[in-house]
Amino acid sequence: MTTPDPTDTVDPIRTLADARDRFRPFDEQAAAAARARHDTLVKPPGALGRLETLAAQLSGIAACCPAPVPRRPVVAVFAGDHGVHAEGVTPWPQAVTTQMVHTICTGGAGINALAATVGAQVVAVDVGVATAPDDTVLTEAGVARSLDDLSAGDGATPGSVVFLDRCVARGTANLAHEPAMTAEQAGQAIDVGVQLAVELAARGFDLLVTGDMGIANTTPSAALIAAFTGRPAAAVTGLGTGISPEVHAHKIDVVQQALDRLHATDTRPGPLEVLGALGGFEHAALTGFLLGARAAAVPVIVDGVIATSALVAAAAIDPDLPAWVIAGHRSVEPGASAALEHLGLEPLLDLSLRLGEGTGAILAVPLVVGAAAALADMATLDGAGIAD
Amino acid sequence: MTTPDPTDTVDPIRTLADARDRFRPFDEQAAAAARARHDTLVKPPGALGRLETLAAQLSGIAACCPAPVPRRPVVAVFAGDHGVHAEGVTPWPQAVTTQMVHTICTGGAGINALAATVGAQVVAVDVGVATAPDDTVLTEAGVARSLDDLSAGDGATPGSVVFLDRCVARGTANLAHEPAMTAEQAGQAIDVGVQLAVELAARGFDLLVTGDMGIANTTPSAALIAAFTGRPAAAVTGLGTGISPEVHAHKIDVVQQALDRLHATDTRPGPLEVLGALGGFEHAALTGFLLGARAAAVPVIVDGVIATSALVAAAAIDPDLPAWVIAGHRSVEPGASAALEHLGLEPLLDLSLRLGEGTGAILAVPLVVGAAAALADMATLDGAGIAD
Repeated sequence: MTTPDPTDTVDPIRTLADARDRFRPFDEQAAAAARARHDTLVKPPGALGRLETLAAQLSGIAACCPAPVPRRPVVAVFAGDHGVHAEGVTPWPQAVTTQMVHTICTGGAGINALAATVGAQVVAVDVGVATAPDDTVLTEAGVARSLDDLSAGDGATPGSVVFLDRCVARGTANLAHEPAMTAEQAGQAIDVGVQLAVELAARGFDLLVTGDMGIANTTPSAALIAAFTGRPAAAVTGLGTGISPEVHAHKIDVVQQALDRLHATDTRPGPLEVLGALGGFEHAALTGFLLGARAAAVPVIVDGVIATSALVAAAAIDPDLPAWVIAGHRSVEPGASAALEHLGLEPLLDLSLRLGEGTGAILAVPLVVGAAAALADMATLDGAGIAD
Repeated sequence: MTTPDPTDTVDPIRTLADARDRFRPFDEQAAAAARARHDTLVKPPGALGRLETLAAQLSGIAACCPAPVPRRPVVAVFAGDHGVHAEGVTPWPQAVTTQMVHTICTGGAGINALAATVGAQVVAVDVGVATAPDDTVLTEAGVARSLDDLSAGDGATPGSVVFLDRCVARGTANLAHEPAMTAEQAGQAIDVGVQLAVELAARGFDLLVTGDMGIANTTPSAALIAAFTGRPAAAVTGLGTGISPEVHAHKIDVVQQALDRLHATDTRPGPLEVLGALGGFEHAALTGFLLGARAAAVPVIVDGVIATSALVAAAAIDPDLPAWVIAGHRSVEPGASAALEHLGLEPLLDLSLRLGEGTGAILAVPLVVGAAAALADMATLDGAGIAD
C-alpha cells in the first residue's frame, strides 16, 4: 500500500480562473502564533519592530509557525513595449527595451548586480517587447531558455539568468486613443504571470520578486493607479526616468485622455477591462504573477510604480491580496505612494530608487529572510534562563 | 633587490592617539569618480538613489573607484554594565547583561540569527560586564576565544562567534552621582575598540558593524547625546526596552542630574571628559571602534541609540568622522534621531527596531554590499549599445 502523492491529484494552475479556485484564506491563526512566539524570544516584546509583523505575515502565508526561512529567491522581470510611446512621454527610444532585455540576459543590468548579492536568480520574460530580442545575441551569450536551468538556484550559484519568450504581441496599442490590449491579449499576459509564479513555486523558489522593463511604462502605470484609486492624473503621474516640466504636463494630459475615454462608457468597467484599456503586457503579467504567488502560497515582494500599479489591479480582482504581498521599496514616483496608501501597505525600504527591473524589491530580500530567521532561530527567554 | 612590504614599516595602531596619527582625508576625488562612473551605467542618471551616494562614500573611504565590494562583514558586540542601573531606570535586572552575553556566544540572540543571514561573523566583547560571563558555560558551548577563529569568515561559514575578554572594570560608577568612568578607564575602553577595529581590518574583514549589549545603557546614551548635541534631557531620553511614564520621567531626571553635575564645573569639559562622565564602557569602546575603523579606512555601519551616542562622542573628537560612517537604522529612541540630525546623517533603514546588539545595522549590510556591487558590476550604456 503506497501513499498517493497529493500533487498527482491536483489539476495544474494555468489561468487566472485556476488560480482563484486555489485561493485559501490567509492563516490568521498561524500569524497569531508567530506574534505569540515572538513575545517568548530573548528580547523585549516588539523590539524587532517591522521584522515581527513581517514574520507574522510570512507565517500567515505559509500557514505554519514559524514560517520556513526563504532560501531560494527569484526575480521575474517582465518586459513589454507601449503604443503610448508615440505620444512622446519619454526621451528614451523604444529600442532601449530590447537592448535592456539583452543587457539583463547577459548579466550587466542593475537587477543582475543586485540579485547576485542576495543569491537570487533572474528570469527575464519577453511578454510583449516591440522588437524581439536578438536570438543570436542570446545564443552567443549562452543565455539559458528554460526554467530547468534555474534548478540549482540555492544561493550558492547566484546570478544565473534565464530568458523566456512568452510574447503576447509586439507592443500594446496606444492607450491615449484606444484600449492598449484586447481582452484576449490581457488574459494571455495575465496567464503568463500566473503560470510563471506557480511554476517557480513548484520548483522550490520560496520568495518571489517582481521586476519589469519597458520604455514608457510609467505612463500606463499612472493611468492604472488613477483608475483604480480614483486619484487625479496629475497626482499620480511622475517624472519617470527624468523628463522636462513640459513633457510631464503632456504626460498628465495623455493619462487624463485615457481615463476620460475609459469613463465615457455607460457601464462602470471591471478590473480586467481597466487593465486591458490602460495597462501594458508587463502590467498584466505582473498582475497574474501576484495572483499566482497567492495561489501557490509563496511570499512575493513588490517593486516600484509599475509593480504597485499591477498590484492595485490585482487587488481589485482579489481584495484579500494585500495581506499576501510585501511592499519592498517606496519608488519616488508619486503613483507608487498613492497605490501603497490605497492598499494600506508600507514598504520596507525608502532609498529613492526609480530604476525598475525589480531593483527596489530585490534589496528587501534580506529583510524578509532576516524576519523569518529571527522568528525561527532565536532562543527563548526561558531557554536563556532569563526571567521575564 | 626586493620591494619592502610597507606594512613592515608601519607601527601598529594600539591607542586613540595612534589611530589619529593614521587618519587621512576622505578621498573626494574617488567619490567624484564614483558619481561620474554611475552616470555612465545602464540606467537613467540618479536612478539608483541612495545606492549611488553610498557607492560614492565607499569609494571615498577606499580611496579608489569602484570601491571593492565588501565580502567579509563582522559585527562587534561590546557589552557592559552601568552603575546608573541602581537608579531604577529599567525593569530588567543587571544579570541579564551577562545572560545575554552567554546567549550571543551560544548563537541564540537576535544578532546571531540576523548575522547568519548576511554572512557576518560575530565578536562578543566583555568590556565591562558586572558579573563575568561564566567560563564553564562558554567552554562547554565550545565558544572560541580568539580572532584567529574568525579567519574562515568569508560568508561561506556564517554565524560563527568569538568571545573576547577585554573587561576594563566590572561595571561603571553611577553617572547620576559621579563620573561613570575614570579618565584612565575611559581611555582603556576606547583603546579596546580601536584595537579591535584595526585588527579585524588587518584580518580582511571589510565591513564593520557596531553592536552593543548592556542593561540600562539607553540612559548613558541619552546623557551623551544631550551633552554633545545640546538638546534637553527630555528630548533625547526614550523608553528603552519599555518603561512606564513614571519611570520615564525619573529617567529624564537622572539624565538631567548627570548633565547638571557635568556643567557645574567652571571649565567646559572636553569630549573625553564628557564620555568618561556619562558613558559606559561599551560606549567608550564603540567610540574607539568607529575611530579605529576610520584609521583602517574600512566602512563601518552604525546601529541604534547606543552606537549613535558613541558616534556623537567620536565626532566631537574627529569632526570629519561622519563622512566615514554609514548610519544603518533609525532606532525608535528619540536620542538616536537627535544624534543623526546633529551629525547630518540619514539612516538606510527605518524598521522601528529597538533591540540593540547591532540588529538594526546588520540588516543594512546587504544594502552596502549592493551599492558597491552595482557600481562595480553594472554594464555601461556604451557597452550595452544604448545611446545616451
